[in-house]
Amino acid sequence: MRLSRYFLPVTKDAPADAAIASHKLMLRTGMVRQNGAGIYSWLPMGFRVLKKIEQIVREEMDRAGAVEMLMPTLQQADLWRESGRYEAYGKEMLRIQDRHERDMLYGPTNEELVTDVFRSYVKSYKQLPLVLYHQQWKFRDEVRPRFGVMRGREFLMKDAYSFDLTEEDARVSYRKMFCAYLNAFGRMGLTAVPMRADTGPIGGDMSHEFIILADTGESAVFCDKALLDMPAPGLDLDFDGDLTAEVEKRTQYYAATEEMHDADAFAALPADRQVSARGIEVGHIFNFGTKYSVPMNAVVQTTDGQMVPVQMGSYGIGVSRLVGGIIEACHDENGIVWPESVAPWQVGLINMRVGDAACDAVCERIYQALQAAGREVLYDDTDERAGGKFARMDLIGLPWQTTVGPRGVADGKVEVKNRKTGEKHEVSIEDMLNQLDAQK
Amino acid sequence: MRLSRYFLPVTKDAPADAAIASHKLMLRTGMVRQNGAGIYSWLPMGFRVLKKIEQIVREEMDRAGAVEMLMPTLQQADLWRESGRYEAYGKEMLRIQDRHERDMLYGPTNEELVTDVFRSYVKSYKQLPLVLYHQQWKFRDEVRPRFGVMRGREFLMKDAYSFDLTEEDARVSYRKMFCAYLNAFGRMGLTAVPMRADTGPIGGDMSHEFIILADTGESAVFCDKALLDMPAPGLDLDFDGDLTAEVEKRTQYYAATEEMHDADAFAALPADRQVSARGIEVGHIFNFGTKYSVPMNAVVQTTDGQMVPVQMGSYGIGVSRLVGGIIEACHDENGIVWPESVAPWQVGLINMRVGDAACDAVCERIYQALQAAGREVLYDDTDERAGGKFARMDLIGLPWQTTVGPRGVADGKVEVKNRKTGEKHEVSIEDMLNQLDAQK
Repeated sequence: MRLSRYFLPVTKDAPADAAIASHKLMLRTGMVRQNGAGIYSWLPMGFRVLKKIEQIVREEMDRAGAVEMLMPTLQQADLWRESGRYEAYGKEMLRIQDRHERDMLYGPTNEELVTDVFRSYVKSYKQLPLVLYHQQWKFRDEVRPRFGVMRGREFLMKDAYSFDLTEEDARVSYRKMFCAYLNAFGRMGLTAVPMRADTGPIGGDMSHEFIILADTGESAVFCDKALLDMPAPGLDLDFDGDLTAEVEKRTQYYAATEEMHDADAFAALPADRQVSARGIEVGHIFNFGTKYSVPMNAVVQTTDGQMVPVQMGSYGIGVSRLVGGIIEACHDENGIVWPESVAPWQVGLINMRVGDAACDAVCERIYQALQAAGREVLYDDTDERAGGKFARMDLIGLPWQTTVGPRGVADGKVEVKNRKTGEKHEVSIEDMLNQLDAQK
Repeated sequence: MRLSRYFLPVTKDAPADAAIASHKLMLRTGMVRQNGAGIYSWLPMGFRVLKKIEQIVREEMDRAGAVEMLMPTLQQADLWRESGRYEAYGKEMLRIQDRHERDMLYGPTNEELVTDVFRSYVKSYKQLPLVLYHQQWKFRDEVRPRFGVMRGREFLMKDAYSFDLTEEDARVSYRKMFCAYLNAFGRMGLTAVPMRADTGPIGGDMSHEFIILADTGESAVFCDKALLDMPAPGLDLDFDGDLTAEVEKRTQYYAATEEMHDADAFAALPADRQVSARGIEVGHIFNFGTKYSVPMNAVVQTTDGQMVPVQMGSYGIGVSRLVGGIIEACHDENGIVWPESVAPWQVGLINMRVGDAACDAVCERIYQALQAAGREVLYDDTDERAGGKFARMDLIGLPWQTTVGPRGVADGKVEVKNRKTGEKHEVSIEDMLNQLDAQK
C-alpha cells in the first residue's frame, strides 16, 4: 500500500480523556474514531488489525472442528422470554421496537438464537457433536463505556456454541475450545492464562476466563508463575484425541480472578511463584448443560430412542477488545510494537527523499519485490520530512522498517530496522532483492 | 470439509410462503434460516457464499483504489439532524433510545457518518481524491419484507464514499466505481446492466443502478440488447487512466428502469435490440456533489487557499441480496448451479459406499489431493444412500462432482460430472491424482 493513496490520519496528541496506552495509541495512529459513547469506526489501519485477529480466531476454531455461520445482530424478544432472560438481563440489553411495535433487541450474546437454530434442524444424536460459531457485532449498553475498544458498547465478539448428547461429551467439547483458545491467543503473541471464573448471567457449572496480564487490566488476578511460562498446546494438537491431560497440565496450577480468589491456597504457593497482577479478560468459556435446552425444548433422540435435552456450552472471544489488549501488551515509549501475526503490514518502507530518481527507483523495486514474495508492505512515498516519517513508522509499529536514502543508495545499500529490538543493519540492495526473489 | 462433520441441514420441501426460486432454494439447502421478519441467520453454507461475494467486492474496490474501513451499525441521531435526514427518512429508519435516552438509529446507509469521519481529519486538497468503503450490516424497516434475503430488513451492504476537490474529479471517481462494479459483477458470473436511475432519498444529479435480469425481478427494465452482450472492462483496466470511453461505451445505449423509462426513445431502437424484462437491482451509484458536505461543513482547502465543500458520491452493492440474485440467475429444476467464483466449494466428492475399504481409500486420496492442489472440496462421507447423495449434490449446486463407487474403483476409475452441463465422463484415478499433484 502506498501511503500517499491511503488514509492514515496520525495525530500528534491523544485526547485528554484517553486514559490508557492502547486507547491513546489507537486514537493517535488513526486506527479508530469514536462516533458516540462506546461506539467506534474502525479506520483503515485499525480495520486491517481487526481482520487479522478475526482470521486467526477463525482458523483456530476451524482447526478444532467448529463450523462458522453468522447470526443477525437484531433478535426477537420472544426467544429471550422463552429462556427467561428477557426481563433478567437488565439495562445492558438494548431493547428496540420496530415499526409494527414488535419487541426486539440488539444481541448481547446468542445462546437463545443459536438454540433456536439448533432445535429447528437437529433431532438425533447422529448429528452430534456440533460446535457452531460466528463473529458478529454485539451491543451491551454499559453505563460508562471506557478505555476505547476495551470496554465499548458495540463490539465484535466470536461466540461459539457446543451441542452434545452427554455431559461427558460436553466436557470433550469444552476441552477442545480450551485448547483452541490457547493456540489462538498464542498466535497473536499473547500469553493468556485460563482462570477459574464465575459463570455470571450465562450460567453453568464450569467456566474459565482467559486473561492476559497488563497493568491497565480491569481486574486483579492471581496465578502460579508456571502458567506464564507454559507455551500453547501447538497447532499440531490432535483435536480428535483426548485433551484431558493438555487441560489439566494447566488447571493443576492455581489461577483465579478476584471474585474466585482463595487467599489461603494462593499463599501456600512458593513465594517466587505467586503472581499477583492486573488482567484483561480476552476470552470466557462456559459449560452450562441444559440451562437453555430445557426451557427452549432443544431435545435430541438418544441411541435407545429417548428424547433428552442437549448439553450445551458457549465460548466467547472479544475480537475487537483484543486489538486494545494486544497494544497494552505490546508497546513502548515510541508507539505500538505489533507482533508479526497481527501487524497491519509486516514491513514499512521509507523513502527518505521522494523525487530523487535513484531513491524512487530503488523503493519501487523493493516494494514490488516484497509484495511478490508475499510480504504486506506500507510504502511511505509521501513528500514529508524524513524525521516525521521515522517517528510515524515507529508510532504505528510495523515489525520491520526498510529505509532508503540517497547516501545508502549511492553505496548500493538500504537500512533494515527491527521495531521491537531497535536493531539496525545495512543490507545490500542486490542481496535483498535476490533473497526476496527466491521466496516468490 | 467432511459432510459428516458439517452442518448442512438440507430439507425436502420449502415452506409455502417462499415465493421465488432463490428463497425456496436457500431454505431447502439450509443456507439461511429466518429469525424474524426480514432477518436471517446465515447457516454455514450460506455464510461461505456470502464471504465469497464479499471478498470479490473487496478485491475490486481495492483494485479501483478505494480504502476499506468499518463503521458501526448504530449511529447518533444528531448527525442525521445535521444533514436534515433524521426527520425526512420516515419509518424505514429504525430509531432507538439507549439507557440514557439518547436518540440513536440503526444505520440504513452511511453518508452522514462517513462525512463526519472525513471532516474530522481531512483539511486539504492534498489528501484527495479519497474513496472510503466498508461492508457492514444495515437495517431498513421495510413494511413488508419478502423474497428472503432479496428484500430483508437486516442486510449486508458494501457502501463506498468518494471525496473530491472538484466536480470533474468527482466524475473521475464515479467512473472508477462504475467500471469496478462491472468487473465485480462479471467475476460473479453476472451480466449487470448499468441503467440511468432516480436518485431517491440519497439525492444528486447523476446516478446509475446496476441491474441483473431475472423473471422474478422486482421492477420492469428496458435496455438495448447490445448491453447484455458486452463483457466487463476487465481486471487489467488501468484505473489511473481516463475511463470516460469505457463508461460511454455503455451509456451510449438505451437502458432505464421503469421510473426513468422513455417509451419513445426505446421504441426507436431496432426491434431485435429492444429488451423489455424484469430486473433485480444489485448496485446503485450516486454523484451528489455537496448535498452533505455543505450542511455538515466538510470543507477542504484548495490550491489557492480557499475553503470549499468537498464533492461527494456514494456507491452501494447489496452483498447479501446478491446471494439471492445469483441463485435467481443460476439455477435449474434440480437446484442451484453456482458459478465457480462464488460456489461454497468447487468440488463435491461423493463416496457411494462408505465403509467399503477401497472406496474409502480412493476418496481419501482424492480428497487430500484436491485440497493440496488448492481446491475447496465438500466430501460426502455420510452413510446415506447414493440416490439421496446425488440429489443433494445437485441441489446444492457445486460446479464439479466427483463420484467414487465400487465398480469404478475396481476399474481404477471415478466419474466426474459438470453440474451446469450435466456432462459426465470417466477419469482414471491415477491420471486425476497426477494432474492434481502437478498443480500443487
